[in-house]
Amino acid sequence: MKLCTYREGSGFRLGLVRGDEVVDVSTSAAQLGLSVPGEMKDVIADYPACRRALVEIEEKGAVAGTLSNLRLAPPVPNPQKILCVGLNYRKHAEESKMPIPSSPVYFAKFANSLAGHGDEIAIPEVAREVDYEVELVAIIGRRCRNVPLEEALGAVFGYAVGNDLSARDLQMRASQWLYGKAIDGFAPLGPYIVTADEVGDPQRLGLRLYLNGELRQNSSTADMIFSVAQIVSDLSRIMTLEPGDLVYTGTPEGVILGREEKVWLKPGDELACEIEGLGRLVNRLVKD
Amino acid sequence: MKLCTYREGSGFRLGLVRGDEVVDVSTSAAQLGLSVPGEMKDVIADYPACRRALVEIEEKGAVAGTLSNLRLAPPVPNPQKILCVGLNYRKHAEESKMPIPSSPVYFAKFANSLAGHGDEIAIPEVAREVDYEVELVAIIGRRCRNVPLEEALGAVFGYAVGNDLSARDLQMRASQWLYGKAIDGFAPLGPYIVTADEVGDPQRLGLRLYLNGELRQNSSTADMIFSVAQIVSDLSRIMTLEPGDLVYTGTPEGVILGREEKVWLKPGDELACEIEGLGRLVNRLVKD
Repeated sequence: MKLCTYREGSGFRLGLVRGDEVVDVSTSAAQLGLSVPGEMKDVIADYPACRRALVEIEEKGAVAGTLSNLRLAPPVPNPQKILCVGLNYRKHAEESKMPIPSSPVYFAKFANSLAGHGDEIAIPEVAREVDYEVELVAIIGRRCRNVPLEEALGAVFGYAVGNDLSARDLQMRASQWLYGKAIDGFAPLGPYIVTADEVGDPQRLGLRLYLNGELRQNSSTADMIFSVAQIVSDLSRIMTLEPGDLVYTGTPEGVILGREEKVWLKPGDELACEIEGLGRLVNRLVKD
Repeated sequence: MKLCTYREGSGFRLGLVRGDEVVDVSTSAAQLGLSVPGEMKDVIADYPACRRALVEIEEKGAVAGTLSNLRLAPPVPNPQKILCVGLNYRKHAEESKMPIPSSPVYFAKFANSLAGHGDEIAIPEVAREVDYEVELVAIIGRRCRNVPLEEALGAVFGYAVGNDLSARDLQMRASQWLYGKAIDGFAPLGPYIVTADEVGDPQRLGLRLYLNGELRQNSSTADMIFSVAQIVSDLSRIMTLEPGDLVYTGTPEGVILGREEKVWLKPGDELACEIEGLGRLVNRLVKD
């Protein structure tokens, strides 16, 4: 199943993706006499109970528009946490001239950084060295703590494509990366969430990033140092994970930071991120 | 004005603090025919409009209990962001054997880390080297971006006492500190928020921490390297700040990490944090 959030006026609506079409979940539920929450975080939390209703809505529901003509929002607009893993692909650690980490390197973003498919992203005046990072994003499915490794994938609701945009000058300004990472709009996510049952093994997915149509990153989640299961289990040893929490799992080689000639991103550039089975997330950079 | 959040059953209620007593805001507003939001984040956002009603409630409202017999929650239980500044006091940077930073060192916690005054805090099984850090916490009052330095304190709603608990072994496990910082319950906050007008200059406040009654930290916010105004203005250059966002502004010298003999915190230890005019935040550590 594919779920999205789209904008209507100043609000958000939940959608089910059927081919290129998006079904309006709340309107359809009312028409069909079904009960489904209207917000992604609540649907994720209630998924075991409302899955059957969603399947019926997917089949019979009212179409709100298409993926191309609706204004998509980040699928989870208001997660409690956005956790990110740095240097989690072998070849990216090498190109960054960093040692292969022996423990996952975690940092954070907040909901202000989220953007949907198609959203324009403003480069702040203070940022000079803006870079892209295509990433597999795991969306947590249930409240959990101390999850054993072998149960960790069971705590994942689904997956989406993410772009961990980074201002390298601000990221490296101090020992901690947050100032170059937690910028407004610098964590695009989308176009939709694909539920875990449709994705299968998250460690066998091809992922690619195109800058203005030019292939820049092209790898597989098989190159991850710490798997999705390891990350989720490890995080759950110190924190309670909640439905809708987002985990950006790191980027493969091919970022601008790793190139000999570093031409940083600028207004007008278009970034297209693709992950096998998860669709295509496109965003354009603009001046602040 | 002093505002708190307290627990009732599994929910939260907003309180106004009058001496040792806590006035129930929603019940009082109903009795007095006044309109005030029931959640701290909304009251902060609406403060200019509801300030007068709050003053009337403070005078005439119904008492729910006292600071000692109510179960206090973190004053803002669900902030969009918890931003923290590391190494922001000169003598603490020296005791940590770190250079005086030339830019603020930011890292993050999430709402799972919050705890209220009186809450017990569980040390996770994986953490060995737990340390305390008394901190002045600024609570953002309005949505803002690109705030000039001279207007930055105007964006602060109020202040509270915080404790930036840290598991040093997990903090130093990787280059980024998050794993030793974002632990459940490791960001106690309270007992209440004091509005900025009652606090005056945030750079002249004494702050102290007692471990089991023994004075361990004793300094003044005058020793901060980057002032509250500088931090708020600097953050607002990359992110939209929101009402209720929390900024933990760093800790002075006296942490366990800086001592010759490092006896880390253990279950049963009691931490009491005090800041001039902001009250006393007490928490006890327990086994997970």
